[in-house]
Amino acid sequence: MNDTSNPLLIDGPAVILVEPQLGENIGTAARAMANFGLSDLRLVKPRDGWPSESAVRAASRADHVIERVRLFDSVEAAIADLGYVIATTARVRGLAKPVRGPASAGEKMRAHALGGIRSGMLFGRERIGLMNEEISLADEIVTLPVDPDFASLNIAQAVLILAYEWRRSGVVQEEEGLRFTTRTDSRPANKEEMLGLFEHLEGALDAVTFFRPPEKKPAVVATLRAMLQRAGFTEQDVRTLRGVVAALQNRPTRPHKRADGTLTTSREKKE
Amino acid sequence: MNDTSNPLLIDGPAVILVEPQLGENIGTAARAMANFGLSDLRLVKPRDGWPSESAVRAASRADHVIERVRLFDSVEAAIADLGYVIATTARVRGLAKPVRGPASAGEKMRAHALGGIRSGMLFGRERIGLMNEEISLADEIVTLPVDPDFASLNIAQAVLILAYEWRRSGVVQEEEGLRFTTRTDSRPANKEEMLGLFEHLEGALDAVTFFRPPEKKPAVVATLRAMLQRAGFTEQDVRTLRGVVAALQNRPTRPHKRADGTLTTSREKKE
Repeated sequence: MNDTSNPLLIDGPAVILVEPQLGENIGTAARAMANFGLSDLRLVKPRDGWPSESAVRAASRADHVIERVRLFDSVEAAIADLGYVIATTARVRGLAKPVRGPASAGEKMRAHALGGIRSGMLFGRERIGLMNEEISLADEIVTLPVDPDFASLNIAQAVLILAYEWRRSGVVQEEEGLRFTTRTDSRPANKEEMLGLFEHLEGALDAVTFFRPPEKKPAVVATLRAMLQRAGFTEQDVRTLRGVVAALQNRPTRPHKRADGTLTTSREKKE
Repeated sequence: MNDTSNPLLIDGPAVILVEPQLGENIGTAARAMANFGLSDLRLVKPRDGWPSESAVRAASRADHVIERVRLFDSVEAAIADLGYVIATTARVRGLAKPVRGPASAGEKMRAHALGGIRSGMLFGRERIGLMNEEISLADEIVTLPVDPDFASLNIAQAVLILAYEWRRSGVVQEEEGLRFTTRTDSRPANKEEMLGLFEHLEGALDAVTFFRPPEKKPAVVATLRAMLQRAGFTEQDVRTLRGVVAALQNRPTRPHKRADGTLTTSREKKE
């Protein structure tokens, strides 16, 4: 099943809910898993039994997760096939175990997955969480950086954040960093085009004696150019802006192509 | 209010819900905010009005967020005091805007906050999200790395992940001692200032019937605004640009004194 050439298609961690009380929470957890590409949901002794109508309702369209749910009698049985297990807790209660945040847990589970090792994430009961004996079965503890004054994350929210971090660990290089939407119709303006814009604008401003006193002109021009350069305009943007300047000059003609393909400026036309 | 010595106590970003339909979603969003230490919730035209009993119920104990909720008639008004705004969308629809993931957005908002600049996060309507005109008001787009086959994150889940990333950016800083430098000379233009520039420019262009045919005006305006928004202008840049527009309109703002004490306008000087 694992296609390690595409980190998004790799088998994700199992989510193990220990004695969940409300079907609704099971359903919203299933939906959160589906949002971030997880599908292996395991329940240890759900209070109201299984299947659960309220779970199906709350899962909205995450049927593929709900249909694959497996039931277990104990945490030990639920995690038997897994190689690395984290226990999510709000507080670390004096257990001698490594503690991580969700992001580094996502990375660690990803690294294991790439090595063919399956991971699992334990989530506790609605009110009382996981027992110490259950936590002790895990390799590591993961805490969420909640506000201590308002720490009551529900199960589905905790699942959502861990599932998000799992997914993010796979896409981090592709999607996380800043990038620009590519517009097939426009490339970044080259320096020649930017210079054409600068000269057009400065000519228009000269005509209305914007640069006063004249000896300040070089500094003002430098400021304007720096500002416009920083903007990262595309070739299309530059054409639009030249249209704006021409219009404000009350000469709403667009630059025209010469026979050789270069653009004439309205300045040239004026002369 | 800002105590920059502790990044977790700094004023967090505003969360702006645009035309939310269900009070329950407002409440669960408020709760997600509280979990990660956010408290500034703004609603633009909530369908069922405000206050909302179902919102209060769903917020469970996040009363401090619900009590501070502010209502606005437009997105423009809701973001007027903010210096950096992200729009959360599932898909990027051909808008030429920078796109980030949630983690780097959290870091960017944190860096701004440390420089005294408030951020905001726009979230759209339950089914149809944000309109392009609304997205064009934002500085950048944030997409969540959801599974494309199951991309339907609800509002509160999207808020939860962005709030989590905001908080995480502070925790990371606390642990790693990261610091951001701020520019004391000029701050980024806020939305009110950008809107002032847009309206000034569009008014000037209207006066020279730049928008032809008139029915194309909204699309052209959206393009212009997106382009200028992307440029990351400072407050000083905006003032310079408004001077440029005013000059090109031939309405010099600052008459100068001749040697004999009478005033010239640049129009006279030109002649």
